[in-house]
Amino acid sequence: MPNDIQIVTESDLRRVAGLNIETVDVIEKAFATLATGDVVMPPILSMDIPDANGEVDVKTAYLPGFDSFAIKVSPGFFDNPKLGLPSLNGLMILFSAKTGLVEAVFLDNGYLTDLRTAAAGAVAARHMAIEEVETAGVIGTGVQARLQMRAAHLVRPYKRLLVHGRDTAKAAACAADLGRDLDVEVEVMTSAGDVVRESQLVVTTTPSKTPLVKSAWLHPGLHITAVGSDQTGKNEIAADALASADLYVCDRVSQCEIAGELSAARAAGEMLDVQPPELGDIITGRHPGRETEEAITICDLTGTGAQDTAIANHVYRQLGSAGTIVAA
Amino acid sequence: MPNDIQIVTESDLRRVAGLNIETVDVIEKAFATLATGDVVMPPILSMDIPDANGEVDVKTAYLPGFDSFAIKVSPGFFDNPKLGLPSLNGLMILFSAKTGLVEAVFLDNGYLTDLRTAAAGAVAARHMAIEEVETAGVIGTGVQARLQMRAAHLVRPYKRLLVHGRDTAKAAACAADLGRDLDVEVEVMTSAGDVVRESQLVVTTTPSKTPLVKSAWLHPGLHITAVGSDQTGKNEIAADALASADLYVCDRVSQCEIAGELSAARAAGEMLDVQPPELGDIITGRHPGRETEEAITICDLTGTGAQDTAIANHVYRQLGSAGTIVAA
Repeated sequence: MPNDIQIVTESDLRRVAGLNIETVDVIEKAFATLATGDVVMPPILSMDIPDANGEVDVKTAYLPGFDSFAIKVSPGFFDNPKLGLPSLNGLMILFSAKTGLVEAVFLDNGYLTDLRTAAAGAVAARHMAIEEVETAGVIGTGVQARLQMRAAHLVRPYKRLLVHGRDTAKAAACAADLGRDLDVEVEVMTSAGDVVRESQLVVTTTPSKTPLVKSAWLHPGLHITAVGSDQTGKNEIAADALASADLYVCDRVSQCEIAGELSAARAAGEMLDVQPPELGDIITGRHPGRETEEAITICDLTGTGAQDTAIANHVYRQLGSAGTIVAA
Repeated sequence: MPNDIQIVTESDLRRVAGLNIETVDVIEKAFATLATGDVVMPPILSMDIPDANGEVDVKTAYLPGFDSFAIKVSPGFFDNPKLGLPSLNGLMILFSAKTGLVEAVFLDNGYLTDLRTAAAGAVAARHMAIEEVETAGVIGTGVQARLQMRAAHLVRPYKRLLVHGRDTAKAAACAADLGRDLDVEVEVMTSAGDVVRESQLVVTTTPSKTPLVKSAWLHPGLHITAVGSDQTGKNEIAADALASADLYVCDRVSQCEIAGELSAARAAGEMLDVQPPELGDIITGRHPGRETEEAITICDLTGTGAQDTAIANHVYRQLGSAGTIVAA
C-alpha cells in the first residue's frame, strides 16, 4: 500500500517557517531532551570529495517525545561560486519514529539548518548572557550573522549592534539590513577587538581557521557564542581565551572535541583536563550556568542532529497541504 | 535559481530498472572501482531506535568516473508487520558529484537495494564459481532468495535449483516461482546440508544468528555467497567452514569485520590472522581468485555504498521523464 510523502521546497518552507520565539523554544526543547538522556545521536557521517573540492555531512538524532526523526544531508562544494551556484545545499528527510516510513522530504537548500542554528544561538543567549544586554556584536557578515543577531534580539532586545567583517562593504550591508529589521542603532567596526570590548553579547559566525577573538579583549559580563567552527581546523576563539573564561559550554561535547573550539584549544595545549557541560545541562539546571553578572561565558555550537529533528518536526506540523504529495 | 529535482517512486523505478546483465555489469564496475582506490566510502551511519524496535542505516560512496553519488537511508522497523506494514523501507538521494546539488530522490522502499544486492551475488558467482554450474542451491525463501537465484542464472545458467527454508510452504512457493521464471528443475529440500552437498553454487539469504552451513558439508568445486549478514550478531556460515575454505572474499573487509561472516568467525576464534581479499581485487586481477576447479570458495556480501552509488547512477540515466519534477 503506497505511503503518502510530502515533498516541500525551500520557497514552500520559507512561507511557513521563520525565525521566531516558537522556533527558539523548539530548539531549546531539543537541547533539554539531549541532556536528559535517551536521545540517540550517532556521530556525523562525513565524506570528502577532493576531486570537486566538496564534502557532505549527514546528521540525525532520535529524540523521545518527538513523533518523527530527521536525517539531514548537507553538501558543501566550495568551487560552486565559480559556476554561479551556492556552496551549501542539502535537504532533510523526515521519518516516522514509530514505523520508519518516510513522511516528508524538505528540499530546503539548507534553510532549516540556518533557522535551527540561529535558534540555538538564541537559546545560548537566553541561558548564558547577562539579563540586560545593551550592546551586542557580531563578527561575520553573511546569512548566519544576520539570523544570529535577529535571533539574539528575540531573547535579549539589545539597543545597539556592532558589526565587524574582513570586508567592510559586506559589514556595512549586514549592519544596514539589521538596523532596518530590528530598529537598533548599528555601527560597523574596523576592529574585532572593539566589537568584543564594547559588547555584552557577541556572536562569531565565520569559517575562520585562525582565532579572531583574543583573550585580552574579554571583560566581565561578556558572553560569546561561536557558531562558525563545524569541522577540525576551524577556529574563532583563541585557546587561552577559551581557557580563561569562567564557563565554557558545548552544544555536544563529543562533537566539539572533534569539530569545535574545544578541538582547536586542545590542539594548542589548552583545556586538556576540562570536561565542559553541555547547553542542555544549563537549560535543565543540571549545571548552574552563569553564576554572577561578572562572569565571562562562552558557548560553542557545532550543530547537532537533535536540532535538525526538532526543527523538522516543528515545521512538519505547520505545513498543512504545502508542497506536493507523492504516493510511494 | 531553483534546481530541478526528479522525484521517482518505487512503481516508476520498477518500470525502468530490472535485474539484467547490464545491472550486473554496473555493480561489477562499482566493485572494480572500489579496488582501484580513490573511492571515498565512509563507515555506515547506524542509529538504533529501541523504543520502536527500529534501526536506520545510512550508506554512501563517491566513485570516480560516476557523475553522481548516492546517499541511501534504510530504516528497519521490526514491529511494522503487526501494523500491516513492511519492516524495511527507505530511499536514495542522488547528488551531482561536481556541485553537490540534489538531482533525484528515489522513493524506492528498498527496491534498488534489492537489485544491487542481487547483482553483487551475480558478480561473485561470475568471478568465483566454477564455469559449469549444473545445480545451484539457495537457503532462504524471501525476496532476496528469488532475486539472487535469478541473478546467478544470468551468469551461471544452472539446470537444477534446490531450495531450503525453515518454512517448507515458503520454500515451495519460492521454488515454484523460480522454476517458472527460469525454466529450471526445482526441488525443495528439508535439509540445508543436502542443498550444500548437491550444489556447485549456493547462496544464503537469511537473517540467521546461528550458523546454517556446516564445514562437514563443503565439497570440492563449491562456491557459497552469503548475503544475509549485515550486522554484528548475524551469522550464516560456521566459523570453521569459513576457515577451511580455500578462498574467503569480502565485499569490503572493513565492513565484514564488523557486520559480516568474518565478524562472527573472529568472535568464535577463527580467521584472526587472515586479511582477506575483496571482490574488487578478484575482478581486477589483483588477486588470482579461484585457482582450481576443486577449490572451495566463499564470498561475504554485507552491502556497500559503492553499489548504491552505482545503481543510482545507472537508473538515473534510464529514467527519462519518469516521476515528478520539483523546482527547489
